[in-house]
Amino acid sequence: MTEEPPHQPSAPGSKEVWKKGGRMFSILLAVHLALLACTLVSSGAFERIAVHDYDVFFLLTVMMLIVIIWIIFYLVSTSRCPDAILCKDSHAGPIWLRGGLILFAIFSLVMDVFKIGYYSSFYSCLSAIKIMYPIVQAIFVVVQTYFLWISAKDCVHVHLNVTRCGLMLTLTTNLAVWMSAVTDESVHKAHSKLKKNTTEELGSTEACNCNSQICQIFKNGYFWLYPFNIEYSLFASAMVYVMWKNVGRFIDHHSHHVQRLKFKLFRRTFFVGIVLGLIILVSGLGVLIVYEVQVNSSTEPSKKSQALTMYYIFNIVCLGLMSLVCIGGSVIYRFDKRDMDRHKNPTRTLDVALLMGAALGQYAISYYSIVAIVASTPRDTISALNLTYALLMIAQHTFQNIFIIEGLHRQPPKEDHKHSSHQKELYGLTFVNVNAVSLRVPDSGSASAPSAAPGSEGSHPSDLLRSLTAPKKINWRRKFLREISMFLLLCNIILWIMPAFGARPHFDNDTELNFYGDSMWPAIVDICLPFGIFYRMHAVASLLEVCIMS
Amino acid sequence: MTEEPPHQPSAPGSKEVWKKGGRMFSILLAVHLALLACTLVSSGAFERIAVHDYDVFFLLTVMMLIVIIWIIFYLVSTSRCPDAILCKDSHAGPIWLRGGLILFAIFSLVMDVFKIGYYSSFYSCLSAIKIMYPIVQAIFVVVQTYFLWISAKDCVHVHLNVTRCGLMLTLTTNLAVWMSAVTDESVHKAHSKLKKNTTEELGSTEACNCNSQICQIFKNGYFWLYPFNIEYSLFASAMVYVMWKNVGRFIDHHSHHVQRLKFKLFRRTFFVGIVLGLIILVSGLGVLIVYEVQVNSSTEPSKKSQALTMYYIFNIVCLGLMSLVCIGGSVIYRFDKRDMDRHKNPTRTLDVALLMGAALGQYAISYYSIVAIVASTPRDTISALNLTYALLMIAQHTFQNIFIIEGLHRQPPKEDHKHSSHQKELYGLTFVNVNAVSLRVPDSGSASAPSAAPGSEGSHPSDLLRSLTAPKKINWRRKFLREISMFLLLCNIILWIMPAFGARPHFDNDTELNFYGDSMWPAIVDICLPFGIFYRMHAVASLLEVCIMS
Repeated sequence: MTEEPPHQPSAPGSKEVWKKGGRMFSILLAVHLALLACTLVSSGAFERIAVHDYDVFFLLTVMMLIVIIWIIFYLVSTSRCPDAILCKDSHAGPIWLRGGLILFAIFSLVMDVFKIGYYSSFYSCLSAIKIMYPIVQAIFVVVQTYFLWISAKDCVHVHLNVTRCGLMLTLTTNLAVWMSAVTDESVHKAHSKLKKNTTEELGSTEACNCNSQICQIFKNGYFWLYPFNIEYSLFASAMVYVMWKNVGRFIDHHSHHVQRLKFKLFRRTFFVGIVLGLIILVSGLGVLIVYEVQVNSSTEPSKKSQALTMYYIFNIVCLGLMSLVCIGGSVIYRFDKRDMDRHKNPTRTLDVALLMGAALGQYAISYYSIVAIVASTPRDTISALNLTYALLMIAQHTFQNIFIIEGLHRQPPKEDHKHSSHQKELYGLTFVNVNAVSLRVPDSGSASAPSAAPGSEGSHPSDLLRSLTAPKKINWRRKFLREISMFLLLCNIILWIMPAFGARPHFDNDTELNFYGDSMWPAIVDICLPFGIFYRMHAVASLLEVCIMS
Repeated sequence: MTEEPPHQPSAPGSKEVWKKGGRMFSILLAVHLALLACTLVSSGAFERIAVHDYDVFFLLTVMMLIVIIWIIFYLVSTSRCPDAILCKDSHAGPIWLRGGLILFAIFSLVMDVFKIGYYSSFYSCLSAIKIMYPIVQAIFVVVQTYFLWISAKDCVHVHLNVTRCGLMLTLTTNLAVWMSAVTDESVHKAHSKLKKNTTEELGSTEACNCNSQICQIFKNGYFWLYPFNIEYSLFASAMVYVMWKNVGRFIDHHSHHVQRLKFKLFRRTFFVGIVLGLIILVSGLGVLIVYEVQVNSSTEPSKKSQALTMYYIFNIVCLGLMSLVCIGGSVIYRFDKRDMDRHKNPTRTLDVALLMGAALGQYAISYYSIVAIVASTPRDTISALNLTYALLMIAQHTFQNIFIIEGLHRQPPKEDHKHSSHQKELYGLTFVNVNAVSLRVPDSGSASAPSAAPGSEGSHPSDLLRSLTAPKKINWRRKFLREISMFLLLCNIILWIMPAFGARPHFDNDTELNFYGDSMWPAIVDICLPFGIFYRMHAVASLLEVCIMS
């Protein structure tokens, strides 16, 4: 819904009368498809509703086939037409995003193989669509990954409306696959909890069941690989959205100097951040394994509460450290001399919107937790830990968002800062931190400094500036920022792994479940947690960008 | 999340280093408050959850008191500081929006009086907060309406961050009041249905109950007035949001010629649209009354299905007519000679976003309905009517959105179109409809026209244009557009009245309730319908603008 500035449409060669109108049409298409998919997926999740999972699979298969055809059409038509892509958006599809996409694509393909293996174990009693679906999905993943790898930066200028609709269709398909995967996983989790509680009364009544060893391996394998497929869909959606924003866009190459960011990650660091982060990552993996084993296997309540205590304490320590580090990073940015980058950049706008939007999921869970804990009567250690955990979760998301957004809006360090460093520093510091300088003036000069002649007055701040911003200090600050981002990055990875691979303290702890009831609390968690998990993965990508830019 | 174009911050006198940062902080505040309010309101709606309605009232009262204090601070500080408001946004707070706000404010005040009367009937057995709440709300409505009446157009330039936070607090408070009112109404509806079904088993067991005649009048009165209070909160939210977007904004007065739109509504019309619209409005009111009486009083299923049939047929006729008229309007816009208005205009951007966003509510209900009807087995007349109704609902929302958005993006007709009309027409028509003109060229000329000399070629289209766009035809087109918007406006009013004052075919018809179950379908309708109702009211405001501008 961004209004274009008035000078935009008069760019050379613009064929579009009204960009907003063209966009609106493709948005309408996407909204209708997304709502239809959402209706079917959410209805299919309930057993007593007469919509089955094969209805959902049928819709998704059709959508994926259409997208595959469109992608082939797009690739052919743009390669034939020489002026189809007049310019490229250097910010779109950075190498780490495309690398992550390929990594997740590989895991998704493995998952599809497992799924095909699982379903073909009892082929005779299933509808054909259940085997068709993973096959089509594998083709879709391969075609889409290739498409995004080579076209993520394109600003298309032919078939504007067809391209917009095609991209929106791709986006909707990815979101529908994501919704279906998330729902499938939640249903699976709920089933396995239920089965454990009723001690396997059901299960062996049906004729064709998954009883062989290999079938069980396939089944467990594909559920363990779901998180990667979920992330793949979201990464692809984000990249497709940026492509859609770039359709018909003209980029002024004067203002958008192409940044060649080199991977100097492991030079010029103290390794403190990485080492600390790795310690937390490894200990987090240990905590997760112990927690899963103790909660799932033992029926003793004392063991369970012990596992919960351990889980909460680990998370509180981790979140507390992260919050402190984020605050430290934001303070360092206050003294940073680089100016703000204000150029139009759809990738960054999307990044910021996604960070703020996805954090809402975790915020909502935490607020509901807090209300439940405060209003419930038995106030034991677990409740206190849970409350601290929920509060720290809110604080950490907030501080981390502020840190990342500030980092993303800084200009990358100039290579030639030795030449014009003095001029630049003066400009930068007075721009950002004029108060700190003016407060320091009376300290270094006499009390009558403000009444001095204009000429002598001017020299004071610039002297101060020179002493404040010695080259050594700059490097020290940059290194510190890099350490901070590396530490946060590793912490976010472990905080992604924990919920993505099955830790659900929300259900193992009874407080909220008793307070909100068996239908409302699972609904809250199942809707909001996928956004919280996505937030972690997205924060990792953004922190990598902040780290490289600082 | 709008990225500012790079030239914006260098506007004369801009004190802000980074507008986005200042905005982010106030958004964070609003998000946290809104989530807390949402948690409490949604928990308070369920009886078995230990959060009571007075907890919600307490929070809302505190929020409203803070907002009242802030508004007084704002009014005092801006009146004292001469350069607080350097410019005004002429698009913000148009007179019909402010007029509507005052109308709804008056009804809200009446509702508050009724509420105070109702609660003071059994003062002894209630907590004080239940009477405090309507009193504080009445003060809040008066203060806020005065504030919005005089300040809706302000572009504030002092205390930027305080003003942003204050406005976001006001916005959040209005949204929280809206959520609370919507929830309260849904709970009341559910209770009254339940009471009717269990034939008043409960009710008289408590000591202090609403038994007196006056108390019953108060109670019914305030529930009938709820829709106005709900609309008041939403209108105020929209105006406050535009004010928030305008904080720190500089408006280029050269490009923003202040439009003096006169109320020429009842001149230059054929009255066809108004007469047709009034016929539908009155018959709709009749249908609503008959429907409410038959569904609520009779226990016979045949009477109920008769009422439902009548309701659906009226809606199908109304929606069908509206869809056709919207398509007609969009076709007329294709031949319109006015250029697109591309100036930055936060009010319009918000209007468009709200229209598209609020339509999602009705879309979702319709899609869920369609899936339920298609998958359910007893396919009788009611089901067929319901399916047609749901499909037409989707079509009508889509076409109406397209019509309104196209209308909002047209330049208002110039007063001096007689002077430079020929030049303007040529430019306008070639701009919008170059294909239609080029297609007509071979018809009027010979087959060898394209190979003719450049001089003679140029005269052909301009002749054609003159014949196509005679002044008579322009007026005819404009009149037609005005008729269409008036008709749509009146239809939207009746489609607002029906759900706002209690028609719920979603629950009177059993198909969806049986398909989705007693918890999921009410949740879908109770969450989505408020957006659908808001859509109608907002469409009325937008159509009034389209009507005046055409």
